[in-house]
Amino acid sequence: MIRKVQPYVPGEQPNGTNIIKLNTNENPYPPSPFVEDALKNLDAGAFRRYPDPSASALVKEIAAYYGLEEGQVFVGVGSDDVLALAFLTCFHSDRPILFPDITYSFYDVWANLFCIPYEKAPLDDAFQIRPEDYKKENGGIVFPNPNAPTGILTPLEQVEEILCANTDVIVIVDEAYIDFGGSSALPLLKRYDNLLIAQTMSKSRSLAGMRIGFLLGSQKLIRYVNDCKYSFNSYTMSQAAIAIGAAAMRDKAYFLECTGNIIETREWAKGEFQRLNFSFADSLGNFLFVTHPKHSARKLFEALRQEGIFVRHFQGPERIQNYLRVTVGTREEMEALFSFLEKYGC
Amino acid sequence: MIRKVQPYVPGEQPNGTNIIKLNTNENPYPPSPFVEDALKNLDAGAFRRYPDPSASALVKEIAAYYGLEEGQVFVGVGSDDVLALAFLTCFHSDRPILFPDITYSFYDVWANLFCIPYEKAPLDDAFQIRPEDYKKENGGIVFPNPNAPTGILTPLEQVEEILCANTDVIVIVDEAYIDFGGSSALPLLKRYDNLLIAQTMSKSRSLAGMRIGFLLGSQKLIRYVNDCKYSFNSYTMSQAAIAIGAAAMRDKAYFLECTGNIIETREWAKGEFQRLNFSFADSLGNFLFVTHPKHSARKLFEALRQEGIFVRHFQGPERIQNYLRVTVGTREEMEALFSFLEKYGC
Repeated sequence: MIRKVQPYVPGEQPNGTNIIKLNTNENPYPPSPFVEDALKNLDAGAFRRYPDPSASALVKEIAAYYGLEEGQVFVGVGSDDVLALAFLTCFHSDRPILFPDITYSFYDVWANLFCIPYEKAPLDDAFQIRPEDYKKENGGIVFPNPNAPTGILTPLEQVEEILCANTDVIVIVDEAYIDFGGSSALPLLKRYDNLLIAQTMSKSRSLAGMRIGFLLGSQKLIRYVNDCKYSFNSYTMSQAAIAIGAAAMRDKAYFLECTGNIIETREWAKGEFQRLNFSFADSLGNFLFVTHPKHSARKLFEALRQEGIFVRHFQGPERIQNYLRVTVGTREEMEALFSFLEKYGC
Repeated sequence: MIRKVQPYVPGEQPNGTNIIKLNTNENPYPPSPFVEDALKNLDAGAFRRYPDPSASALVKEIAAYYGLEEGQVFVGVGSDDVLALAFLTCFHSDRPILFPDITYSFYDVWANLFCIPYEKAPLDDAFQIRPEDYKKENGGIVFPNPNAPTGILTPLEQVEEILCANTDVIVIVDEAYIDFGGSSALPLLKRYDNLLIAQTMSKSRSLAGMRIGFLLGSQKLIRYVNDCKYSFNSYTMSQAAIAIGAAAMRDKAYFLECTGNIIETREWAKGEFQRLNFSFADSLGNFLFVTHPKHSARKLFEALRQEGIFVRHFQGPERIQNYLRVTVGTREEMEALFSFLEKYGC
């Protein structure tokens, strides 16, 4: 009997030279020069050998960067891979897991794939997570921080409030966008062994194309995830991904410069969107979630697409259907966007 | 609640320059020169973008090589990844799946991970699959051809006999080692839409380090596997894996030369093992599964290890505990092995 599922649909990856791609939250800057060096040093002859199944060269760099033990780090093929494995490992109960109604749209897909019951907790009218919604019986909790696609950060005290009320289950904080100004739950790892943090090198480290994500947690929890990983695929990280990911982690100065530039552009872009009468949440991600009182999101999306400017429009809960998610690109890309929106009549 | 599993344990990946590594069925030759070119042409700057989620450049080459439609090819992170997803997709039933008692030891691990019931069908005394064991009610069938770790090929007529008796379930033929002289079930795809073939670039195409495996099947079946894949991780294949895998598929001449050399060394090695009084099945893989009447496999394993020669010894069903699986290396590596075994007193 075949398992029939409704898969997640990733944002499109259009080809073409003259396009402005603000639809999949990619980084507008290339990865660190360290990555280029690591790529040059790869030895094709060595590809005949299996990679280190524990990817320890990469794990080591991540652990060192965050001041953790190596046993507290799990790496995988992008944050989707590590989140999928975290769901499979940690949400193994008959009680429903909880996540926001407006959130990363992969959560219910994973839950359906693994037959995990779930309940969605509605965000409040300002699109904020309400910690009290996460204080009922459940089989685990997951939410992004900042949330996607809104960009809104849940303050660390509220994250702790949720952790504190759920010490008998695992709470996954999906920090795919944490490097653009948010406060990571990292300091809470010392006090909460029910906390699992997911991060990725796709956004803040410009490595979407190499597929590298990771989990941070207690040694015990990471060991359980590793057991499931070794029950799925012994060798997930290629020799190339291990070397390139490790190189990217080593270049802290470049990382800070890049993310700093993106934050600066985002804050400037907020002013521009305001000037053009858009409303939006105060995003701390590398994207803005915007709506216009006069122009429908769907029509704007299509008009921008015609112009070669790709943004993301989600079918999804009704109250977000009139929103667009716009990745923060370079200053020039954003200027082209605003210049079009102005001409369009926003 | 945590899912607690007993993971598969991969063969060790020892470091060191003076070792002879015959323990994980790697190819003793480097990948095609086309791979080196593809590696040189990778653009680190492009890594900031997501890869093509459908990996179509790679899918296209595989389809062209085997004369299939692109919709008949599914690619993933090594054959373990594609097999894991095939289990998850195709074995979604309360009836037990069937596989041999002596076989790739990942099958029961996947079944346990996904809570798939299973039954093992014992090989006969010559370690051969008995097609009649696969004619009872079941939730699906999987077996390697050639079988691992024996190397014994099930003739195509018997593969067809099994397919024919099981048209209501999916039969996965795991052809990780088919390129070393066996007959692929590929021609049967036309007649059996319950057939799914798994192959890998790790062995015959010297790309273990880059993690590339694939499934071949009917368009309908491949679509279902893709739905599950897109419900797990949208982007599994990195830009590097896509480009390098596609390059390897294009170099048919090199592939034939390499696999030809390995077959030649294997056949010569059979003579040497015989001369030293080993018994073994007539392997069509890139490995031999050998036992000696006087020397225990475990002791031989340890003595070889001391010498820097790594082979594989499986704890497992009792009747294979006195066997060693020896990967076919270069002629020189095999000569070093035989020279040690001779000195050891075999």
